[in-house]
Amino acid sequence: MENKLKELRTILAEVADLHQAAALLGWDQQTYMPVGAAEGRGFQLSTLQTLVHTKFTAPHVGELLADLEQQAGQWEADSNEARLVRVTRREYEKRTRVTSEWVSEFTQATTNAHHVWAAARAENDFGKFQPHAERIFELRRQYAHFFAPFDHVYDPLLDDFEPGLKTAEVQAIFEALRPQQVQIVQAIASKPQVDASFLHLNYDEQKQWDFGVRVISQFGYDWQHGRQDRSPHPFTQSIGLQDVRITTRLNANYLNAALFGTMHEAGHALYEMGIDPALARSPLASGASLALHESQSRLWENLVGRSLPFWEHFYPALQESFPTQLKDVSLERFYKGINRVQPSYIRVEADEATYNLHIMLRLELEIALVEGTLQVKDLPEAWNARMQEYLGAAPPNDAEGVLQDIHWSSGLIGYFPTYALGNLISVQIWERINQDVPDLPDQIRRGDFAALLSWLREKLHFHGAKFEPQELVERLTGSRIDPAPYIRYLKAKYGAIYGL
Amino acid sequence: MENKLKELRTILAEVADLHQAAALLGWDQQTYMPVGAAEGRGFQLSTLQTLVHTKFTAPHVGELLADLEQQAGQWEADSNEARLVRVTRREYEKRTRVTSEWVSEFTQATTNAHHVWAAARAENDFGKFQPHAERIFELRRQYAHFFAPFDHVYDPLLDDFEPGLKTAEVQAIFEALRPQQVQIVQAIASKPQVDASFLHLNYDEQKQWDFGVRVISQFGYDWQHGRQDRSPHPFTQSIGLQDVRITTRLNANYLNAALFGTMHEAGHALYEMGIDPALARSPLASGASLALHESQSRLWENLVGRSLPFWEHFYPALQESFPTQLKDVSLERFYKGINRVQPSYIRVEADEATYNLHIMLRLELEIALVEGTLQVKDLPEAWNARMQEYLGAAPPNDAEGVLQDIHWSSGLIGYFPTYALGNLISVQIWERINQDVPDLPDQIRRGDFAALLSWLREKLHFHGAKFEPQELVERLTGSRIDPAPYIRYLKAKYGAIYGL
Repeated sequence: MENKLKELRTILAEVADLHQAAALLGWDQQTYMPVGAAEGRGFQLSTLQTLVHTKFTAPHVGELLADLEQQAGQWEADSNEARLVRVTRREYEKRTRVTSEWVSEFTQATTNAHHVWAAARAENDFGKFQPHAERIFELRRQYAHFFAPFDHVYDPLLDDFEPGLKTAEVQAIFEALRPQQVQIVQAIASKPQVDASFLHLNYDEQKQWDFGVRVISQFGYDWQHGRQDRSPHPFTQSIGLQDVRITTRLNANYLNAALFGTMHEAGHALYEMGIDPALARSPLASGASLALHESQSRLWENLVGRSLPFWEHFYPALQESFPTQLKDVSLERFYKGINRVQPSYIRVEADEATYNLHIMLRLELEIALVEGTLQVKDLPEAWNARMQEYLGAAPPNDAEGVLQDIHWSSGLIGYFPTYALGNLISVQIWERINQDVPDLPDQIRRGDFAALLSWLREKLHFHGAKFEPQELVERLTGSRIDPAPYIRYLKAKYGAIYGL
Repeated sequence: MENKLKELRTILAEVADLHQAAALLGWDQQTYMPVGAAEGRGFQLSTLQTLVHTKFTAPHVGELLADLEQQAGQWEADSNEARLVRVTRREYEKRTRVTSEWVSEFTQATTNAHHVWAAARAENDFGKFQPHAERIFELRRQYAHFFAPFDHVYDPLLDDFEPGLKTAEVQAIFEALRPQQVQIVQAIASKPQVDASFLHLNYDEQKQWDFGVRVISQFGYDWQHGRQDRSPHPFTQSIGLQDVRITTRLNANYLNAALFGTMHEAGHALYEMGIDPALARSPLASGASLALHESQSRLWENLVGRSLPFWEHFYPALQESFPTQLKDVSLERFYKGINRVQPSYIRVEADEATYNLHIMLRLELEIALVEGTLQVKDLPEAWNARMQEYLGAAPPNDAEGVLQDIHWSSGLIGYFPTYALGNLISVQIWERINQDVPDLPDQIRRGDFAALLSWLREKLHFHGAKFEPQELVERLTGSRIDPAPYIRYLKAKYGAIYGL
């Protein structure tokens, strides 16, 4: 048994090394790769991915798992050993049930669709993208059927990103959330708007960079095991637990982009940096799910970074960096400005009050498309109707509507809900931390994030991917994913800012 | 046959992809990797290297080669197909003859030796390094015997870096070269020294960088398929033919470091960038040997970059970049300064006139150690005696003597001669180009490098690793490696500068 476990770990470690090599290739592609190197990079990544697939899905891995499962009773249920076998089994089933023909067709379809989507968005021509979207939704429906029987055809898609979570649960959560969130947005819209014009002055990019570095260093971002670079689309890349890199973008005419983007990515990175080193080079050496990951980025970006105590500490330093732009802007005005609520057509620009509405709209459409109750050709109309209903305005064109996101062209169906779930989980965790660390606001007011990070490390980060998301949220907060704390949070925060 | 060739190409392409992924990991390690990521990077590289070895040395590769060799008569001798089979066979024999036990012991020995060497150099304590050097020379001797019978025990070591070249040939070349080169150095030493003090003023690093970029852009370095970064030790890294990166180091108090370092690395890169794209993802997609590679870096650095016509074009721009430092330095004084000859203890700081003497000393010692006619414990004494004889001064300590270079601690025995051979080849090629392009000095005086690069691309770069070094030099210049042109070059150049 010891030998079999050792053998499995050796195979998984090699697979992890190949994943990490691919991660560096991906990081480089988005940061420093020369433009003319794209074709060769494609070959390198494809060879690595094929090797990962071949090594991981080898029948011998299945035999090792079967042998280990027979003896799993010897391990405690929460032990690294028991969880490693369980999580590896889950991944093994996922990867071996799907035929290689399907993988090949899906890769082909998404590779083609990506270029067409980019052109369709640029030309505001949904018709161009439509046949590709039809093909991708059809392929994802086929994918779901590899895992039949299921409660809902969307379940296997969701499971790719949130292991164990069911469509019915997400629908119930969103049904409870949506009317309340719509109501808050409407209430805010009826009040006088706050001023945020000062955020759009000219801000020196190097000073923005330096301020971001100062903030995340204070959070606990470990520069011995990470670095920050520029990229058009900010992202976090783990190249193994010892090397967790982030990127940011700088906009000389909009302070928020780098400011909150940097904190967001640092939140993702702190999660990876806090994982138990004993889990390194295994499938457990990552966050538990996309929603859990997003809960960490959102916690540092919003619950810390857009809070009043945070700015009570940092605002003098920011004013010192940008005296011309901010000397006449009071802390209160600044705080209200960065928390301004303004319904927009574009998800990635959305504020905390409206963001989840963008997500719920996408989930409803995805489910209807996978169920077959909505046709791709009717998608723009359905999109615009929901925008009108939830946010009060339909976009003027499809480029700013149904074509805005890359996800569908990449085949990422089942991914969107994780963004909203991450927001909900972040506040559930936040409420719990504030019970355990009652003077947390004072600590933040002093720029002290040590107790906060310790709490997160011990209860969440350390465990990596050992637990499934719902199980983990329950361990952390005492209940499964629940929208009530998020609604309480929005009401309290915007109640104060907008005088609701 | 077509199918077997296709199959071999597919395997070699996958091996090349893995090599390229490892190349990026290596590039990153020396440029941007966080310091705390070293252990994980070691695992990643080791897993990739093991995979490369397993894939490349599979018995099936040997069978494919044997089948293809039987039918090789159908291809022209210089065709890509015939050469691919031949070069792959050579590599296959190299890799399969050596036992995995030896590889494991060698890896272990060099990993240990590297740290000890660094400490020994820092503490100026050869005794500390001695047992490790003994082990490494013993292992390399064992390595040679995997390839018995041989004319000379050093042949298989040299062959790792210069395929097909024999120890006796290199010895004959160096025997002819050494007395003449010693004589030139002695003649220079008897003349008044030129002034180079202005090279050691303070030079803004960004302006040094910009000037280097301007120069190599004009050479033809392709920024669509490359980039330059900073690193402590400058190097060129090919991550496939579409992605050939260089690094440079900047020294605020010494103009030469970046100036000639950048041209040197660009020379290596231009070689890789000029390889026939049809050879991509195969063992032919690299330079023909280390000496051929060095001939290209030295050609651009020295024969172009330290020439008077080059500075007739670029010196006004350099003066414009550094008016304070250079306004009172005439072109003639500048040209003499950058070509100052000054025997030194350290190889990497050596000028063109003394450099080869450092190499010849190392080769003689390596051969004696591998033959067993010299013992490692007697190495410092032998080193210092030769320094006295060739360069007129023994180093004051072993740190600046026998311990200065990293090569032996890394197991790179057989590597040193390639530096000197590269110098010789560079002038052989240069004489030939000047016959074919008689107005080349005028073109360089105008800053026009197009004809030069075209010549090199067509006759040398394009062929990649299809030909062995001696064969290639003969094709290029009409004779095998020959020291006479280099001696002519040194006499003419330093005759003019020092009035010999």
